[in-house]
Amino acid sequence: MNYTLPSSLILDSLLRDWLLEDIGRGDRTTDGIFPVKSPQGKAFWIIKEEGVIAGLPIAEKVFKLLDSEITWQNLALEGEKQAQNTKIVEFKGKMSALLTGERVALNIVMHLSGIATMTRKYVEAIKNYPAKLVDTRKTTPGLRILEKYASSVGGAINHRMGLDDAIMIKDNHIQGAGSISNAITLIRKTMPYPLTIEVETSNLQEVKEAIAHQADIIMLDNMTVTAMTEAVKLIRQQNPLIKIEASGNVTLANIAEIASTGVDYISTSATITRSPWLDISMKFESSHK
Amino acid sequence: MNYTLPSSLILDSLLRDWLLEDIGRGDRTTDGIFPVKSPQGKAFWIIKEEGVIAGLPIAEKVFKLLDSEITWQNLALEGEKQAQNTKIVEFKGKMSALLTGERVALNIVMHLSGIATMTRKYVEAIKNYPAKLVDTRKTTPGLRILEKYASSVGGAINHRMGLDDAIMIKDNHIQGAGSISNAITLIRKTMPYPLTIEVETSNLQEVKEAIAHQADIIMLDNMTVTAMTEAVKLIRQQNPLIKIEASGNVTLANIAEIASTGVDYISTSATITRSPWLDISMKFESSHK
Amino acid sequence: MNYTLPSSLILDSLLRDWLLEDIGRGDRTTDGIFPVKSPQGKAFWIIKEEGVIAGLPIAEKVFKLLDSEITWQNLALEGEKQAQNTKIVEFKGKMSALLTGERVALNIVMHLSGIATMTRKYVEAIKNYPAKLVDTRKTTPGLRILEKYASSVGGAINHRMGLDDAIMIKDNHIQGAGSISNAITLIRKTMPYPLTIEVETSNLQEVKEAIAHQADIIMLDNMTVTAMTEAVKLIRQQNPLIKIEASGNVTLANIAEIASTGVDYISTSATITRSPWLDISMKFESSHK
Amino acid sequence: MNYTLPSSLILDSLLRDWLLEDIGRGDRTTDGIFPVKSPQGKAFWIIKEEGVIAGLPIAEKVFKLLDSEITWQNLALEGEKQAQNTKIVEFKGKMSALLTGERVALNIVMHLSGIATMTRKYVEAIKNYPAKLVDTRKTTPGLRILEKYASSVGGAINHRMGLDDAIMIKDNHIQGAGSISNAITLIRKTMPYPLTIEVETSNLQEVKEAIAHQADIIMLDNMTVTAMTEAVKLIRQQNPLIKIEASGNVTLANIAEIASTGVDYISTSATITRSPWLDISMKFESSHK
Amino acid sequence: MNYTLPSSLILDSLLRDWLLEDIGRGDRTTDGIFPVKSPQGKAFWIIKEEGVIAGLPIAEKVFKLLDSEITWQNLALEGEKQAQNTKIVEFKGKMSALLTGERVALNIVMHLSGIATMTRKYVEAIKNYPAKLVDTRKTTPGLRILEKYASSVGGAINHRMGLDDAIMIKDNHIQGAGSISNAITLIRKTMPYPLTIEVETSNLQEVKEAIAHQADIIMLDNMTVTAMTEAVKLIRQQNPLIKIEASGNVTLANIAEIASTGVDYISTSATITRSPWLDISMKFESSHK
Amino acid sequence: MNYTLPSSLILDSLLRDWLLEDIGRGDRTTDGIFPVKSPQGKAFWIIKEEGVIAGLPIAEKVFKLLDSEITWQNLALEGEKQAQNTKIVEFKGKMSALLTGERVALNIVMHLSGIATMTRKYVEAIKNYPAKLVDTRKTTPGLRILEKYASSVGGAINHRMGLDDAIMIKDNHIQGAGSISNAITLIRKTMPYPLTIEVETSNLQEVKEAIAHQADIIMLDNMTVTAMTEAVKLIRQQNPLIKIEASGNVTLANIAEIASTGVDYISTSATITRSPWLDISMKFESSHK
Repeated sequence: MNYTLPSSLILDSLLRDWLLEDIGRGDRTTDGIFPVKSPQGKAFWIIKEEGVIAGLPIAEKVFKLLDSEITWQNLALEGEKQAQNTKIVEFKGKMSALLTGERVALNIVMHLSGIATMTRKYVEAIKNYPAKLVDTRKTTPGLRILEKYASSVGGAINHRMGLDDAIMIKDNHIQGAGSISNAITLIRKTMPYPLTIEVETSNLQEVKEAIAHQADIIMLDNMTVTAMTEAVKLIRQQNPLIKIEASGNVTLANIAEIASTGVDYISTSATITRSPWLDISMKFESSHK
Repeated sequence: MNYTLPSSLILDSLLRDWLLEDIGRGDRTTDGIFPVKSPQGKAFWIIKEEGVIAGLPIAEKVFKLLDSEITWQNLALEGEKQAQNTKIVEFKGKMSALLTGERVALNIVMHLSGIATMTRKYVEAIKNYPAKLVDTRKTTPGLRILEKYASSVGGAINHRMGLDDAIMIKDNHIQGAGSISNAITLIRKTMPYPLTIEVETSNLQEVKEAIAHQADIIMLDNMTVTAMTEAVKLIRQQNPLIKIEASGNVTLANIAEIASTGVDYISTSATITRSPWLDISMKFESSHK
Repeated sequence: MNYTLPSSLILDSLLRDWLLEDIGRGDRTTDGIFPVKSPQGKAFWIIKEEGVIAGLPIAEKVFKLLDSEITWQNLALEGEKQAQNTKIVEFKGKMSALLTGERVALNIVMHLSGIATMTRKYVEAIKNYPAKLVDTRKTTPGLRILEKYASSVGGAINHRMGLDDAIMIKDNHIQGAGSISNAITLIRKTMPYPLTIEVETSNLQEVKEAIAHQADIIMLDNMTVTAMTEAVKLIRQQNPLIKIEASGNVTLANIAEIASTGVDYISTSATITRSPWLDISMKFESSHK
Repeated sequence: MNYTLPSSLILDSLLRDWLLEDIGRGDRTTDGIFPVKSPQGKAFWIIKEEGVIAGLPIAEKVFKLLDSEITWQNLALEGEKQAQNTKIVEFKGKMSALLTGERVALNIVMHLSGIATMTRKYVEAIKNYPAKLVDTRKTTPGLRILEKYASSVGGAINHRMGLDDAIMIKDNHIQGAGSISNAITLIRKTMPYPLTIEVETSNLQEVKEAIAHQADIIMLDNMTVTAMTEAVKLIRQQNPLIKIEASGNVTLANIAEIASTGVDYISTSATITRSPWLDISMKFESSHK
Repeated sequence: MNYTLPSSLILDSLLRDWLLEDIGRGDRTTDGIFPVKSPQGKAFWIIKEEGVIAGLPIAEKVFKLLDSEITWQNLALEGEKQAQNTKIVEFKGKMSALLTGERVALNIVMHLSGIATMTRKYVEAIKNYPAKLVDTRKTTPGLRILEKYASSVGGAINHRMGLDDAIMIKDNHIQGAGSISNAITLIRKTMPYPLTIEVETSNLQEVKEAIAHQADIIMLDNMTVTAMTEAVKLIRQQNPLIKIEASGNVTLANIAEIASTGVDYISTSATITRSPWLDISMKFESSHK
Repeated sequence: MNYTLPSSLILDSLLRDWLLEDIGRGDRTTDGIFPVKSPQGKAFWIIKEEGVIAGLPIAEKVFKLLDSEITWQNLALEGEKQAQNTKIVEFKGKMSALLTGERVALNIVMHLSGIATMTRKYVEAIKNYPAKLVDTRKTTPGLRILEKYASSVGGAINHRMGLDDAIMIKDNHIQGAGSISNAITLIRKTMPYPLTIEVETSNLQEVKEAIAHQADIIMLDNMTVTAMTEAVKLIRQQNPLIKIEASGNVTLANIAEIASTGVDYISTSATITRSPWLDISMKFESSHK
């Protein structure tokens, strides 16, 4: 595992909220069977289709919120691709905690692993090019930090995390400000100084304006491969330090061709918004006591 | 529109949290262009692929948290299927509010409409049978109420909302309790009395036990169509008031055949866990001031 | 003890809030005497009138929030009836924690034990009948889960916990919908499918309508014993699976007679809304150091 | 009405929490009948036993959280004693809001009016003496501000609101500090300077110590009337500015005799911990549309 | 150390919020260097100018929220004056936790020590008089409890902590009520009985009114030394139990002269609102592993 | 006024918390005088020393949380320098709201105006140079967004807002990573791609390393003016796009000389950590009704 999990300061309150979303006023089924004292149980998880695992350390935290003495053994690491029917984790603890936490823990890992799995496919499709895959702000409300974490586990680089850690000037902003020049000039007056400015462009004319006003990043939005190739050449000539990002209608089928234009980054939301959950199921060892 | 939106008491704090997740310490781009006073703008949304709309009244609330004087006009109703390129809503207000709220509002509606759209397909596949489509507890953490809302907008009936509004005895519970009989007997001692008891069964023997102990709902889990047909016949003979639910490996390809067995409900998580977001984009009217 | 305590996920934040409600900006008396380091103390609780104990494990949690190294020994179990002047718990820890937590811990246990004590009286009054005592939604705001817990410790079965875990159609709902039939038909279109439907009836005509539309539970509200007897006979003939609940003006004096009508459940709010706190006091052992 | 309601800053979040406690994931009954648009309704409340009303302005806030356009007309004022079967309030608004908010609003007013009603009885019992009735910190967790409000509506004076707005030195504190003198000396070093110091005494010797160390208030705890009379005389002679409070085993039967000893304040928890809820019911006008 | 730290129940949530204020969506620098597993590090703090230390136990809590296994050794006690360049604390733990927590922990201690340092100067300036220094409600929003703690560490006595633990009648209140007499009479009807009443006066006439209506504390606001001397004499003659507070334009230059008038308390906000942070820096030991 | 106020989504919950911090369980003085209905009052604020105003729109929000019908008229704009004894705002509303909100509103504006005032002095000291003043992360816990707002009102540019919107590699990070090269290489693997990298350097050797590894910003920390001049020359030669920041021991006395070295930015914490509050007082108009 080679990824920084979000801080416990952030995760713990999310996980409590998510457990309470499911438990509501009490897990009537489990509490009915084990009203006072639960026997110990041993469980494991199996992935039912090939995929890249993401979120196991979070699942461990979920169960430990219900039984602090859970023992947990990962059999797969974050970011590893696992074959169908692989056992990816084993853990022991109060059977009541295992039953009550099962759904929430699985929901998290199935969703995040789905994202990591699809991200990996896009990353592998451009592995022969210097271009890097980046994600977007199209994320499920409330889950941005975790979905972006899954994206990085899958191999992508995170784009900005919100509206405050970089400037992104889009066509609507340009329309509001009157021109790219106006927009950049206005923003530079008030923005925290270390922020970078990215400008979305849809044609060479806009690319030139962005260069002229010293954008740090130029996004080529929905351009043809031919147009992108030309834009890259232009930007490299004018200022080799400007980063170039391709965006719009990126698919597994066309991403390699986009990468071949020489852009630095290719952004897509599909890895988060179009990735099915990875199928994982939880079983109990037959003899537990 | 024919669906009850979750209470504002529930929605408002979610929407605030979700806006703050994106805004962080401030929308540097928009605030830079309109630092003090924003001009008015007029925007609209277009769906870029055919789909069933869900979540528009929530999007309205998102924008009104940023500008209470937004005027909002729905051009499509919740649950209506719309053709590609349809304009589904128009609204006016401070351009700064439109820009700052755009991503969060779209993320909600694109995700919920994706769910409603796929749900509708499953519902239509069994429209000639009495069986109803139901959802599951496989929902994105923190979004259960909204994803279940989208499921109902799509035409499904909600299954239980959490661990506290119905009893569901699964194989692991039976293993823990020793038998179906033990499980039901134990649970009946402590559960709130109006709750129903559903028992998950995988063969006829378990179905018989569930009938014998007066389960309110019997789930036929991962059975063949032949086995389900037999189970339905058995249950109807013994107790016509028991509700029957089919579950496991339900697809658009096989759902009609499952419905033909005479079950009352067919549950699937695919409408929530495998539905891509519906593509929607926001544009500004060219002349705004 | 034979009752499931509400989850720590629910309890812990309540208990923190309740301690802070009392402590405010600081316990000036205790902090003034032990400003930096507190000596150890040993305390015990004595009940000053006969009663059924409820809430001791919650009191333990209260003190442990103030001193995690408290040692705690229950001398009475949840749900046991104890004689006047019985010592019910002994515990040791920082004297400052014992003093600061005393009032909150006692307030919880005195209130919950008051409920359990009165509930037990009602339960014992019908012990020779199959009818079960159930509680209602008349609970102190913010304390429903705990007051319902105390009710179960006293021997009652919990009725629904809120507006979302069962349907209850009352006269005002019927008035709004036009008829029982309309109300049930409308509700069945949108309610989560495992929920049960209870219909409040005040005469035989309404009972018949409820039967005809397959209510799961029929409540006989404020009927005479004669009317209830007739209603029970009618319902049993028509559909032996329908549960019958008697409600309205239930007292210790008349509950046995109500039970004799053959109803399944008798509901009352008096055990929660009319139960005085059980008197308990806390003392310190004379020699502590 | 002559009482200061707790600030909306405090009340509003409590009321939201309390509504959500009842509503959970949605009011299935009401939402089922009025899924999209509710008709208007007109309701009123009737008290079913004589009592002092407290909490009506809070009930109004509850309903307005569900329908901001409710019109509300109080027919009784806070603190007024009303006869059985009096209509105390009428209000109009969305029938769905009236139905969803009914239980929470009534639970608040029935509980608070129960406290105000019993408090009034104690207050009237000592109306011929200068002594004032005061409450204690025995309050239901989470409701102290409201229960103390009800106590003041009933005619009592509030004692301290928590552990931080006055010093109260009890026997256990004295035991920890070694003596009354030590306790007062230690506390005076760190306490916020405007706070008063109250000392609990159980005999004349302790009274003398408290006087000697300039306690601001002396509580006579569980003394006989004879002992109290003597203590009052002693204190008045030594320092006429010291306030005197009687406490312990105060009942409606003996409170007048206690007042006759000349104490300034008589404290009891019974008005809060032993007061049954006042019975109030809500009805709809027959013709609403 | 001789001061009561605010309860963990209060501190912990503040410290979490403050860490999250700085960390936002993640400490990109530190997480980038130590993405998975951090080496251990050893750090120490040095004060770069003479001052009184306050807040070290809070800093310890900050780091322990990031790494529960931090070992922490105070080299200076709360309230001790330390010379420039003194090492005041050493601690070991995960280097990532030390780096991520550094700024928040230092911000707290530098601010609180700045307050304690300036407070100590005022306290020392009046050490030959019986008068005590007290603080005010001019505190940074959100930090009152901590700033008042620093004030007490510096040697002051806390004045009231908020609007609810004592009555303070100012000129505007008197204007609103019509007179001091009216104000006191009105307030006595509703205030919790142990609260004290302080009256702000600006001349002898007002002092007399305050005495006549039995104020517990009289504040002499912005009076000359001559006027204060006269006021003190008058009050002592009339009622030796009334406490006297001087306030307004108190400086290090004139505080001793004010104290010489015989007042009991001198209040100033300067120790909190005009105290620069004490300069402290954090260094790592060169060899850590 | 030319500054973007933090979003209401951020401000409103802070302001509620801060009012509650002061009000606690109730403003006993004001509520005692106006227990039910308050008369209207008219108040104004006067600054008692020359200064730059910041925070008035926040003060308006504070009062409106207590009385939504307050009318508010600014007589000074954010960022304007005002002479001593200038009336800066007038407002009318319930006298009870004016009295209860006074302290919190003034505390905010006095603190923020103190920061803006001192910031303005530093800004004016370098007005003849291209260098811009920037702030730091030395801010009072919980107030960063507001103190940075005041800093911008004073004329500074904000530096990064937290640990997540830019990379800052300090000596301790370099020590942990082994070298500047290692640190940058490691961080680039995981950081969100639009973030900039700033490297803190203390000598020319480190400056060269930072240039070699394409730092976006180079901070010259605690260097002499001679060393800074040399460093600036070196950086400009090598890469004119790199931004240069001077830091360490910046004072009003030496800031112009630092600016003369040609750096782009000069950072100091003194404007926030060493700025006394601006003295402002609130008065009531004599005739209010």
